[in-house]
Amino acid sequence: MLKAAGIVVEYNPFHNGHLLHVNETKKVTGADIVIAVMSGPFLQRGEPALVSKWARTKMALASGVDIVIELPFCFAVQHATHFASGAVRLLDAIGCDTLCFGSEDGTVAPFINMVAWKNNNEQLLNEKIKQLSKDGLSYPTATAKSYDLLADNQGSALDLSQPNNMLGFQYIEAIHKYAPGITPFTIKRQASGYHQAELHQEKISSATSIRKAIYEDGITSVSGHVPPETYSGLLQYYNHVKQYHSWEDYWALLQYSILSQSPEELRTYYEMEEGIEYRLIDAARKADSFTSFMEAVKTKRYTWTRLQRIFTHLINHTKKEDFSGNTAPAYLRLLGMSQPGRSYLQRRKKEFGLPLISRVGRNDEQLLSMDLKAGRVYAMGVTNKAARSSLLLADYTNPPIIQL
Amino acid sequence: MLKAAGIVVEYNPFHNGHLLHVNETKKVTGADIVIAVMSGPFLQRGEPALVSKWARTKMALASGVDIVIELPFCFAVQHATHFASGAVRLLDAIGCDTLCFGSEDGTVAPFINMVAWKNNNEQLLNEKIKQLSKDGLSYPTATAKSYDLLADNQGSALDLSQPNNMLGFQYIEAIHKYAPGITPFTIKRQASGYHQAELHQEKISSATSIRKAIYEDGITSVSGHVPPETYSGLLQYYNHVKQYHSWEDYWALLQYSILSQSPEELRTYYEMEEGIEYRLIDAARKADSFTSFMEAVKTKRYTWTRLQRIFTHLINHTKKEDFSGNTAPAYLRLLGMSQPGRSYLQRRKKEFGLPLISRVGRNDEQLLSMDLKAGRVYAMGVTNKAARSSLLLADYTNPPIIQL
Repeated sequence: MLKAAGIVVEYNPFHNGHLLHVNETKKVTGADIVIAVMSGPFLQRGEPALVSKWARTKMALASGVDIVIELPFCFAVQHATHFASGAVRLLDAIGCDTLCFGSEDGTVAPFINMVAWKNNNEQLLNEKIKQLSKDGLSYPTATAKSYDLLADNQGSALDLSQPNNMLGFQYIEAIHKYAPGITPFTIKRQASGYHQAELHQEKISSATSIRKAIYEDGITSVSGHVPPETYSGLLQYYNHVKQYHSWEDYWALLQYSILSQSPEELRTYYEMEEGIEYRLIDAARKADSFTSFMEAVKTKRYTWTRLQRIFTHLINHTKKEDFSGNTAPAYLRLLGMSQPGRSYLQRRKKEFGLPLISRVGRNDEQLLSMDLKAGRVYAMGVTNKAARSSLLLADYTNPPIIQL
Repeated sequence: MLKAAGIVVEYNPFHNGHLLHVNETKKVTGADIVIAVMSGPFLQRGEPALVSKWARTKMALASGVDIVIELPFCFAVQHATHFASGAVRLLDAIGCDTLCFGSEDGTVAPFINMVAWKNNNEQLLNEKIKQLSKDGLSYPTATAKSYDLLADNQGSALDLSQPNNMLGFQYIEAIHKYAPGITPFTIKRQASGYHQAELHQEKISSATSIRKAIYEDGITSVSGHVPPETYSGLLQYYNHVKQYHSWEDYWALLQYSILSQSPEELRTYYEMEEGIEYRLIDAARKADSFTSFMEAVKTKRYTWTRLQRIFTHLINHTKKEDFSGNTAPAYLRLLGMSQPGRSYLQRRKKEFGLPLISRVGRNDEQLLSMDLKAGRVYAMGVTNKAARSSLLLADYTNPPIIQL
């Protein structure tokens, strides 16, 4: 029987580090195929993806991924806990028996120990996080610091202030809760840190630094840092769409979304906290770019990521009532497959825990409502009329991409 | 004591027929000053006004109106009944003892008789309207025809298929219900019909035909059809804002509003009827202009005006829950005044039935929430950055316009 390993990705864009991850995943898990659960048009940190999910799927398939499944919007634009649990449950539903993530740590035991420790010390931990938050730390920092202060004394050393360690911890926890049949693996991340902004010499650079280089110095500046298939995919996208997406492209929509609603209405959006609404309206009336707007609204209390996520929910009309607790995924949305991926799906799809959606029929529109909406909003940030039109149709008409 | 006559206007834009109306109002009522209740940025037929309410206030004051009060959004973008009752109650609150409207009929007795007849035959009438609506007539046509079939037999001849007669009828009804102290007058409308599209030879042309001429042939084509003050005001506006507003300027916002929401969310908007949501999303994905969108969505069942009003509510985020029945006006928003108007306000404002708001302070923002929102949305349709910025600030910082 074909064996599948799962990975959780954003590919914004696919780069040399991702290539290594795919290859290592096959090696360490011994799986025949690799299945990626990938965020759609909007990402975990509350940003539009550089290029469409279709273009990112192509790049992934061209570099060795066998199946790409979309992580639905309601898990993708979320705190790490929901993000991880949505992804893990999808990988479980599609039959993966292993999951392999990159981490700063590089060995899986400390993650498993830390989850075990957490489950025995939840109250203690929550009190500490609460206390540190009150002292003025942001939630992620307070969490990492609480583990550091409490758990390390117990000998379960794992540095959760490292972003990929923290995310890995969430995967392990989700496996523990929802998918105990999955065996976790981790590989050590090479070279530069996740958020490092400079392009790295050794040609493994973070996606953040690659995007920065593309926005500032153009596509040619990243040619050595991404596989040739990514490079040509990015070039092609630009030729067709005439832009790489960034928040500035959605500034008019964000400004309008804020200005067309009353403070009371703004308060109904997901992650919006009372007190910020008047501030948003005031700043949106005066700002003339996303950057100047962000400068005007950000405070110590609101991290950049948190604000971006709020804004993503604003432009996508996601309300508090839309996200009631920890929903289970309801479908597997297939974005693309390689030939081995195709065989895997044909042979195994009857065992899948969720319906596999290859093409969105009329009957699926309600089920996929939030993802279709996110796709339309993403398209609305495109200036070129022809490209916008084709992107507006894509979710309804595109078949999955097949890598020949 | 200074006596005030009230008029209800949109001034989109102010033209020679309006000038006649102002002058005749003073003559027939014998009032010292004329107070106009004027729609704000969005109009009764569900359209953005050609120019801002500030520019329209200036034109009105320059042509003899003494006080301009804004008809709040929640009455302005409404069926005639709500529109009329909001306006009449504001005129009552600001101390008008007469109201003068233009009509095709030209004498006030048939209006009064018709209201009296209606009050005695409500059930009969509603049944007839219902029946004719079922037969496929639009609501306005069914209403006019019902009166025609039933009331005319009683000798109360008033042709309610004429739009200004119908609106006048609503004013008289509102006076009867809410402001019996107001004495109504009507003057016969000169020359061309309300909706007539061709510019009229005798220089009294409808606002519709004037707008059409401005959009199609430019501002010079209407020079003889509007007072010189309107003409120079329109020129000035264009120099500053670089556009006359039309639905096409709001197409991107409308398209985004439709595409960023699910059918379920669209259903919560005011005047939205079940069944049209999927149609709207489908058409918005494919259309690339307001005109092509309208062509795609309009049906026999949905009149142009009705659709435009739905779309105005969509881009302004007005929900069904925002309009619960027949609300009473809560404030008098002063947009401008002449010197006599100013004296009137100084002497009489203590007797007013509602608070007079000359400048929007922080404390007024909640009360005026919907109007401020409409002002911001109106500004978002402006392409020129500097003009958009200044329009975005106007409602918060502009003092009332004073005609010297």
